[in-house]
Amino acid sequence: MPKPWATLGIDLHLEPAGPGLRRGLTDALRDAVRTGRLAPGTRLPSSRSLATDLGIARNTVAEAYTDLVAEGWLTARQGSGTRVAERGTGGGGGSPRTSTTVSATPYVTAPPRPHHPRPRPRPAYDLLPGTPDLASFPRTEWLKAARRALLAAPHEVLGYGDPRGRVELRAALAGYLSRARGVRADPERIVVCAGFGHGLQLLGRVLRARGAQTVAVESYGLPPHWNQLTAADLTATPLPFDELGTNPRELTDESAVLLTPAHQFPMGMPLHRDRRATVVDWASRTGGLVLEDDYDGEFRYDRQPVGALQGLDPDHVVYLGTASKSLAPALRLAWMVLPPTLVEEVTAEKGHVDTCGALDQLTLAEFLTSGAYDRHVRAARLRYRRRRDALVRALATHAPHLNVTGIAAGLHVLLRLPPGTEQSVVQAATWQGLALHGLSTFRHESATAERMDALVVGYGTPPDHAWAGALEALCRVLP
Amino acid sequence: MPKPWATLGIDLHLEPAGPGLRRGLTDALRDAVRTGRLAPGTRLPSSRSLATDLGIARNTVAEAYTDLVAEGWLTARQGSGTRVAERGTGGGGGSPRTSTTVSATPYVTAPPRPHHPRPRPRPAYDLLPGTPDLASFPRTEWLKAARRALLAAPHEVLGYGDPRGRVELRAALAGYLSRARGVRADPERIVVCAGFGHGLQLLGRVLRARGAQTVAVESYGLPPHWNQLTAADLTATPLPFDELGTNPRELTDESAVLLTPAHQFPMGMPLHRDRRATVVDWASRTGGLVLEDDYDGEFRYDRQPVGALQGLDPDHVVYLGTASKSLAPALRLAWMVLPPTLVEEVTAEKGHVDTCGALDQLTLAEFLTSGAYDRHVRAARLRYRRRRDALVRALATHAPHLNVTGIAAGLHVLLRLPPGTEQSVVQAATWQGLALHGLSTFRHESATAERMDALVVGYGTPPDHAWAGALEALCRVLP
Repeated sequence: MPKPWATLGIDLHLEPAGPGLRRGLTDALRDAVRTGRLAPGTRLPSSRSLATDLGIARNTVAEAYTDLVAEGWLTARQGSGTRVAERGTGGGGGSPRTSTTVSATPYVTAPPRPHHPRPRPRPAYDLLPGTPDLASFPRTEWLKAARRALLAAPHEVLGYGDPRGRVELRAALAGYLSRARGVRADPERIVVCAGFGHGLQLLGRVLRARGAQTVAVESYGLPPHWNQLTAADLTATPLPFDELGTNPRELTDESAVLLTPAHQFPMGMPLHRDRRATVVDWASRTGGLVLEDDYDGEFRYDRQPVGALQGLDPDHVVYLGTASKSLAPALRLAWMVLPPTLVEEVTAEKGHVDTCGALDQLTLAEFLTSGAYDRHVRAARLRYRRRRDALVRALATHAPHLNVTGIAAGLHVLLRLPPGTEQSVVQAATWQGLALHGLSTFRHESATAERMDALVVGYGTPPDHAWAGALEALCRVLP
Repeated sequence: MPKPWATLGIDLHLEPAGPGLRRGLTDALRDAVRTGRLAPGTRLPSSRSLATDLGIARNTVAEAYTDLVAEGWLTARQGSGTRVAERGTGGGGGSPRTSTTVSATPYVTAPPRPHHPRPRPRPAYDLLPGTPDLASFPRTEWLKAARRALLAAPHEVLGYGDPRGRVELRAALAGYLSRARGVRADPERIVVCAGFGHGLQLLGRVLRARGAQTVAVESYGLPPHWNQLTAADLTATPLPFDELGTNPRELTDESAVLLTPAHQFPMGMPLHRDRRATVVDWASRTGGLVLEDDYDGEFRYDRQPVGALQGLDPDHVVYLGTASKSLAPALRLAWMVLPPTLVEEVTAEKGHVDTCGALDQLTLAEFLTSGAYDRHVRAARLRYRRRRDALVRALATHAPHLNVTGIAAGLHVLLRLPPGTEQSVVQAATWQGLALHGLSTFRHESATAERMDALVVGYGTPPDHAWAGALEALCRVLP
């Protein structure tokens, strides 16, 4: 009578070789255990099941198992089946009695040293900008939307898809971006990508293939974005920066300019109205392209709306948005709204089939059209605004001499420091277990603007329970 | 008292401009409707909600709404709130009375012609190889696993991730590939990618950066894979092909060879045992790299196991597997098991953070470790074997003069045709609404092997209810 575990039916790859079947099978199994290919504790298929798979008699398998139990490689217990023995623990069959003859390198149990650097130990408090409060990701709502979306989807959704991304998501985004961000959107001109970086990579390659050589960037920004352009064999040259933000007046024959118009990262101001006009004018005059990074457009706390620059000139502006700040980076979902003339090239660069998972795309579409996205963003906005208020209050109390700017939007503020103190403050924070970035981290090496000492304080990342502690730790390290 | 829809709270981007607030808001709203930025039927926020957002008096919003209802741009109905009027349908507020003054291009309602070719109409029957039976994707089981995985995951899972992919998935894959495919796997050397094509793209770029110029491929294979190599600036040169399959004896100074050792695509035979040895010997002798495409290793119906070539020489073979055949292409999940010396470069080429969605990765990890993957594969294997049997029987009855090969594994067979008939059979199939590929589709243009006429009949794609019809349609078009 088969035991319960007889139906387990795990797949097991074995190639019995040599003269006798029993001998061949025993050798193959022993080898699999010895080299670590079968990990200690792995439950083997029942002899009946393995015999069927290999097309041999059940007795042959049972005998091979018995031999290996006797040798100590396997253990057999009533009711729990045959398992690979634990090594050197004294439990199970103990160490194999033939272990002195082992010569093969145990690849799995003693792997070579990893070549990828391990992440550093996590600091106690994290005030780095760029990641939202992961604890408030709406897990249950997301799972409900995933369920509704997957159970309602036609089978073809599960096949190879349109490289631009699922049409359901592109349609939902067109409606949302038009309504909430003032984007001139149309599903035919939207391409879904795996995060902003992926979108920038695709755009960089297309620009390079068109003969572009230089892309203007802001004096302050994210170095990985500049690296993305450099990797596409483009030169990233910074524009001047002053108290009104990035100054686009020096734009000349660059092929494109990468900007954060709604909320300069990390300085925090919107691009000045006159300068918005200057950029758009430059683009339409020279045929240049504006790459609009609208990374946190959902989070604006004051009442001065800042719509997408793309609305002013959809033929020369690429709008880039992302779910990384509004929902979670792990979704790896972002989107580009492209001028008509770029759609074909960017799509071809992405591939001949979609490379973004369809299930999360369908779930996000459902999230957007059901109103769950708006509800989540509104709740998050309220939570972040409260944090922002608490942060500004705490700084006013504990460090009234320090100037805080960029507080009207987003998930970070800029905290000016006395000249020459930035590095020591960041170092002191590290010692206290507080992860913190100075402004210099985000300054382009060729920037010409006067240097200033400041902290870029991200208040999105800490979970609620750690927020008060993070704030205290910050106040402790300020000069 | 607020209406139920007053709590809807959708986000609406408006920039009231001009002298008076009421006039400015009215103009901004009218403009949003006129240009199509707000689609007909869109429900607007309640006047209370919009007033709060804009920081103005509720009355101002209510008056602007009233003006626009009077002009016909909006409709207001008791209990269903204020909506954007339908245009020219006679319903709602009818066409706006001021429509003769419209001058802006309605970008959303009349988009420019799409630049991406639309997919052709779907044929009635689909016997193309490459896609599994999408109807048998285990939706409910997958959703259950997604739920378990997401609810149990720590928050950090939702942030930016290790570019190699989620460690939970890499660990689960190491166990599975080792046990079921004889791969020498180790989570530290696994990199998750968005489908086989993405993996090949990364490998091609890394090889090119190392100075590689030529990659040997098989005389028969998938043109998109060859294109992937060409896009990385590599030359793909085909190896000779004979009745034993691909002949690797002519390998010399190529930097790598791309092979389907377990199940040649599309010919269907495994790489001959002697030739497996020849390939591995070439690799270790010259430092060349073997790219092992194990696209459908899970589906083998006879009892002659064919393990991964990688098990013979993990230092020179890259093992590539995918969930596209065993589960569904739309997951966009595949994996590479890399020689230690390649891990760092391939990871860096993928990016500084993971580009594959974490939720599906966690779900697949849960699917593997819970045994649901094995159960699904076993059930699918049985279903596909029955189809294979039905196909072979039908061909034996209706076309006994035609030779069928490659039946021992996978989701397709090769059906030899009389010389000179391939093109006309494929054409006849198209006329009958049957999608079918001839062997010539998969032949490299520089291949030297004698041409043969054949069909590559995929039996994975049709859903169960269409399978009998597809089989009949096939038999009808055979010579």
